[in-house]
Amino acid sequence: MTEQKENIAVIGAGSWGTALALVLADNGHQVQLWMRNKKQLKEINEQQTNHKYLPDIKLPENIKGFVSLEESLKGTDTAIIAVPTKAIRETLRQIIKIIHIPFTFVHVSKGVEPDTLKRISEMIEEEVPDHLLNAVVVLSGPSHAEEVSLRHPTTVTVSSKHMKAAEQVQDLFMNQHFRVYTNPDLVGVEIGGALKNVIALAAGISDGLGYGDNAKAALITRGLAEITRLGTKMGANPLTFSGLAGIGDLIVTCTSVHSRNWKAGNMLGKGCKLEEVLDNMGMVVEGVRTTKAAYQLAQKYQINMPLTEALYHVLFNGMEPKQAVDQLMMRLRKNEMEDLVDILSEQMEQK
Amino acid sequence: MTEQKENIAVIGAGSWGTALALVLADNGHQVQLWMRNKKQLKEINEQQTNHKYLPDIKLPENIKGFVSLEESLKGTDTAIIAVPTKAIRETLRQIIKIIHIPFTFVHVSKGVEPDTLKRISEMIEEEVPDHLLNAVVVLSGPSHAEEVSLRHPTTVTVSSKHMKAAEQVQDLFMNQHFRVYTNPDLVGVEIGGALKNVIALAAGISDGLGYGDNAKAALITRGLAEITRLGTKMGANPLTFSGLAGIGDLIVTCTSVHSRNWKAGNMLGKGCKLEEVLDNMGMVVEGVRTTKAAYQLAQKYQINMPLTEALYHVLFNGMEPKQAVDQLMMRLRKNEMEDLVDILSEQMEQK
Repeated sequence: MTEQKENIAVIGAGSWGTALALVLADNGHQVQLWMRNKKQLKEINEQQTNHKYLPDIKLPENIKGFVSLEESLKGTDTAIIAVPTKAIRETLRQIIKIIHIPFTFVHVSKGVEPDTLKRISEMIEEEVPDHLLNAVVVLSGPSHAEEVSLRHPTTVTVSSKHMKAAEQVQDLFMNQHFRVYTNPDLVGVEIGGALKNVIALAAGISDGLGYGDNAKAALITRGLAEITRLGTKMGANPLTFSGLAGIGDLIVTCTSVHSRNWKAGNMLGKGCKLEEVLDNMGMVVEGVRTTKAAYQLAQKYQINMPLTEALYHVLFNGMEPKQAVDQLMMRLRKNEMEDLVDILSEQMEQK
Repeated sequence: MTEQKENIAVIGAGSWGTALALVLADNGHQVQLWMRNKKQLKEINEQQTNHKYLPDIKLPENIKGFVSLEESLKGTDTAIIAVPTKAIRETLRQIIKIIHIPFTFVHVSKGVEPDTLKRISEMIEEEVPDHLLNAVVVLSGPSHAEEVSLRHPTTVTVSSKHMKAAEQVQDLFMNQHFRVYTNPDLVGVEIGGALKNVIALAAGISDGLGYGDNAKAALITRGLAEITRLGTKMGANPLTFSGLAGIGDLIVTCTSVHSRNWKAGNMLGKGCKLEEVLDNMGMVVEGVRTTKAAYQLAQKYQINMPLTEALYHVLFNGMEPKQAVDQLMMRLRKNEMEDLVDILSEQMEQK
């Protein structure tokens, strides 16, 4: 539990932003929760609920909602950025018009920007001028918002180029239910978090097709191998993908009833078209955009990523899900180690 | 699909033995399925069902049941050993009294023998004299018998000291639904398969206590790290634990409704005593015995295995499950990489 109580801005009042606001409030901090929607604001400040995103949760008094970005940033130098990846640049452009002192930006979204292929920490570094930037910290790991809000035991990882800032963020969030660990591998933590949504879509498709746990486990295993190959080539430590932000997050996202990306994949596997799925979800499905970015990353770094490629063709080129999954199951090389040895070679190259 | 049709003995008609018999039969082989129980024999040969283990499945004509071990071994030099780990030595002692030519023994059970700390391939090498032993092959991976019997897509790994024998076994089993890959790392494949049952018990306990997916993912992640540390010290390739026989099998066992080890853990988490759980299951729960062996292996190789140790104390020393899981969640080191770096150090030592 932290000693010093602070004002902290949480930008974005979706399920994850609200759950993290709860953790901070539990630790005694004053949370300034920003949202765009005035109806949601009224509900949060008057009824202390956020029904659409976290039904059944009562918010404490030390979470206060704002629709004014300026008010939400007042008296703090720490902003938790909890908006979807595609809204991050626009949100930052507004924030830097308001702030005058260097801020620590903690990003908790999971994605990679298509076309520019930037990780979120890189987007933040691009948008925020040096004199307004203290540090960028990522918080990632196996953490469904619903469970965090119920105070179920949860573990996450924080990382940064500035590990001192990461440790300060660790202190802000750490409590008995919400365990926060540090990992100096920023690239690995960001890539693991972003790309697991791609695998979750594929796992959902497999389930939607009526295939079983055996098939899904094979897909997840292959998916982790290709994320590891790509991440290592991008400079990550391959071991990060065996940790909370890698396999941990992948397991939760691929096997849990709470996962939006899995749900979207499941609907695709059952024969829905992408547009129907996205209309139906009502929340952002990060994996769809990330699949495009991952496909581009595979080309840029010349990494063999058969699962990502198959999913890309399902989402954007009208490939039949069944054809994609069957092809993937048939395509594993005869000797399993050939796939794995690729990772080791990448690893050696880095040294 | 294999070209040459063979007679093959499958020793043990539980769910896994029967499912593998089905795969071999689908490939056109003549399967001689051995069991102890005469009532089960009558059902299998007269009604072509094995209701207790694989309800709803019709067995084809080219699976024939025997209670005579001698008859089941006639005209073949390949025996699939599908009995529980604790029955393996006794079964082999009977087999070697019958056979006169060198056999390939394919073991498909998952365990390590307590006290001797032998892997199953080592037990087979000890029991079968050289002149009766062609090769020992292990078959492992994410493969619930129920799904295999329904011809759902499944992938497994085979390994052996004699890779030519492993490739022959690959040819026997490989078909469109059941994909078989080779991996030369015998130690890794056996240890991964055996120890995932320990983690599955722990994952079941967490679910039984009412903790959520976040907690379970953290436990599985930690569990994989400690299996990898131990296996690497024992001579395995750490990459095997990122493959089908490692993380693949672990995911299936920890998250599937079919898993006996998960079910047993779940009952423990809900407050049942070990004796009640074992009475209730009616099938062998390999993880209980393997936990003892894994605890002893951790001591022998001086590997830090907090999850295995906690589970050992729950099973054999009356520790409260809640206390064990809470302790594990609190005990992760502050820097996640410290745990992971241990693996890398082990890996370097091996080179």
